[in-house]
Amino acid sequence: MLSEVLLVSAPGKVILHGEHAVVHGKVALAVALNLRTFLRLQPHSNGKVDLSLPNIGIKRAWDVARLQSLDTSFLGEGKEEKPEQGDVTTPTPEQVEKLKEVAGLPDDCAVTKRLAVLAFLYLYLSICRKQRALPSLDIVVWSELPPGAGLGSSAAYSVSLAAALLTVCEEIPNPLKDGDCANRWTKEDLELINKWAFQGERMIHGNPSGVDNAVSTWGGALRYHQGKISSLKRPPALQILLTNTKVPRNTRALVAGVRNRLLKFPEIVAPLLTSMDAISLECERVLGEMGEAPAPEQYLVLEELIDMNQHHLNALGVGHASLDQLCQVTRAHGLHSKLTGAGGGGCGITLLKPGLEQPEVEATKQALTSCGFDCLETSIGAPGVSIHSATSLDSRVQQALGGL
Amino acid sequence: MLSEVLLVSAPGKVILHGEHAVVHGKVALAVALNLRTFLRLQPHSNGKVDLSLPNIGIKRAWDVARLQSLDTSFLGEGKEEKPEQGDVTTPTPEQVEKLKEVAGLPDDCAVTKRLAVLAFLYLYLSICRKQRALPSLDIVVWSELPPGAGLGSSAAYSVSLAAALLTVCEEIPNPLKDGDCANRWTKEDLELINKWAFQGERMIHGNPSGVDNAVSTWGGALRYHQGKISSLKRPPALQILLTNTKVPRNTRALVAGVRNRLLKFPEIVAPLLTSMDAISLECERVLGEMGEAPAPEQYLVLEELIDMNQHHLNALGVGHASLDQLCQVTRAHGLHSKLTGAGGGGCGITLLKPGLEQPEVEATKQALTSCGFDCLETSIGAPGVSIHSATSLDSRVQQALGGL
Repeated sequence: MLSEVLLVSAPGKVILHGEHAVVHGKVALAVALNLRTFLRLQPHSNGKVDLSLPNIGIKRAWDVARLQSLDTSFLGEGKEEKPEQGDVTTPTPEQVEKLKEVAGLPDDCAVTKRLAVLAFLYLYLSICRKQRALPSLDIVVWSELPPGAGLGSSAAYSVSLAAALLTVCEEIPNPLKDGDCANRWTKEDLELINKWAFQGERMIHGNPSGVDNAVSTWGGALRYHQGKISSLKRPPALQILLTNTKVPRNTRALVAGVRNRLLKFPEIVAPLLTSMDAISLECERVLGEMGEAPAPEQYLVLEELIDMNQHHLNALGVGHASLDQLCQVTRAHGLHSKLTGAGGGGCGITLLKPGLEQPEVEATKQALTSCGFDCLETSIGAPGVSIHSATSLDSRVQQALGGL
Repeated sequence: MLSEVLLVSAPGKVILHGEHAVVHGKVALAVALNLRTFLRLQPHSNGKVDLSLPNIGIKRAWDVARLQSLDTSFLGEGKEEKPEQGDVTTPTPEQVEKLKEVAGLPDDCAVTKRLAVLAFLYLYLSICRKQRALPSLDIVVWSELPPGAGLGSSAAYSVSLAAALLTVCEEIPNPLKDGDCANRWTKEDLELINKWAFQGERMIHGNPSGVDNAVSTWGGALRYHQGKISSLKRPPALQILLTNTKVPRNTRALVAGVRNRLLKFPEIVAPLLTSMDAISLECERVLGEMGEAPAPEQYLVLEELIDMNQHHLNALGVGHASLDQLCQVTRAHGLHSKLTGAGGGGCGITLLKPGLEQPEVEATKQALTSCGFDCLETSIGAPGVSIHSATSLDSRVQQALGGL
């Protein structure tokens, strides 16, 4: 058991290319979004486990003694998903029911809150029960990511929790050395973090693809193809605007709409999906090239790919007037945008080329805000889950985590 | 030689689906646009051939005696394009030079005017020289079609000229019987009209595809695939708005842009062209079904095809902000639009479903006009070249043709 404060962060994700097409066996590129979830874990000795999630108004405490007295052997009964995952087990419906009792949440508790608490308890009990005694901890998790916007906020939550709990229990070593501002874990440790984070995601989402937790763990850019996830070598960090149209969308209905269109017009839609696949592959190729030998023309190609895919997504029927407006507004400033994720509203990304004047970027953000959208300047291809020194975190984050 | 006044009209055309893709071997659907070119031919005895083209400010007269005295044997020297075309010959560069002398146009004459006069003289001399003497004629041609908008105005001009000249020379019989408002020629006569009209088009365009004159001759809807033109059986007439954004475009540059994009991203663009091909085929199928058994759902399919193809054309890079605006404005009135022809500005078509309230149509037209566009309510799938009785033409047309 470590006794020091741990400060962990994990990024969100956006789909760069391949949303919807991925459902039909095509390649998708997911990239780490540098809007991060920050976690502060402080071991203490008051016999409590405190969980504070200021974004969603959760502040709960459990008696360690009570948790200890519970028969947590049920956590070991889960069927192992893959034998090679070692200690990582999959929550069963029975485990979820028992965890609900442990959590002691009111019946009218909002789903988001309940799932966040259950995922925490599951990871805490599963990871820490191998300790001589369950540790007394104070945990605060605060995120820059808007929840429910398809930006992988739940995965960033699970990843940062898994990383912090595995580290405090010394299942994996703390990679932060004296004088480091930030550091990351080894490949093997990240694999363990990712496996546990996936279990957290399963608690929250039921049957997640595993892409979101993988991106949040590994950072950079990932290729997802027919269930297989692989990291891109040396992906560049790209500056973007992330714009939330705030138009609510129904992912299930959008996915069903594409499937129906494919069934209705197979000869028209199947080649369109093939074209989207080729966009993902071409983007992967260009990102690889940018990592090796960056050149300004590469940004022009990225822009063309963004434009074509946005038109393709419209042709699939997952566009929205708000997204058209987003594209039009940024186009008027010479910038190229596409929806990201399910479409039908939700978020869009706008590529910011190097060498753009800041006033031009500000004017674009202003124009998007005037449309009623939320607009943030950030980057993609960000580092995955990281551990930080207290002094390296900016004051806004420090304050959000309750002062450090 | 007939001695009565002939009143002939021929429709323009729009590309319903397949523009640009057709250049790369895919199917295009061209449909007759019920904006027509009207021609009045009046045989007279003043020894002159008068040509009046009020739309472009042409009013010329030639002495029949002088034309008769010219050695017009040069017209017979042209290499025949296809032996089965019989008397129809192709203008050679030498013939064009000689015709320029005959025309006696000033050197600074605008290209459009010069080509219109040359095409007329070519058709007049070639078709009428088999008469004992060249006829003295007064010809007025007036069109509802804006020139240079990709709506086949030159083909409608050539078709109406060929039909009127072949009829006055009794190469083909006048199909208008007493009491008829309008009538059309037989299939064989239309074939001859089409062949001559194609020669007129060659005079004007150099190397036309033959689609425009075919649509103007046959009317309805045509399928064009790798040089092969065939008529659709029983195509329905569809009400549309034809909107001219008045944004000038460079067809050559747009076609080159698509070719470059195909060369740059073959894996992305080739399947897109395949998808466009499938849109043309699906549209052809639905139009056939509408001819057999019309049903409201068919309009919904036509709308979906219009939307998808508009997005595809945007993905090819031939869209324009004015066309986006056109689509947006009509979408706000529940109507679906696409560009037609080369794109990059130019014209768009909007499908008007049956049962639309006229005030709604008027509001849409008003909204488009407010954008600075010209907007006309018309139909596609219109009849091809026709001959009319004087009383059946509306007063606007009668007036344009100089009173009847």
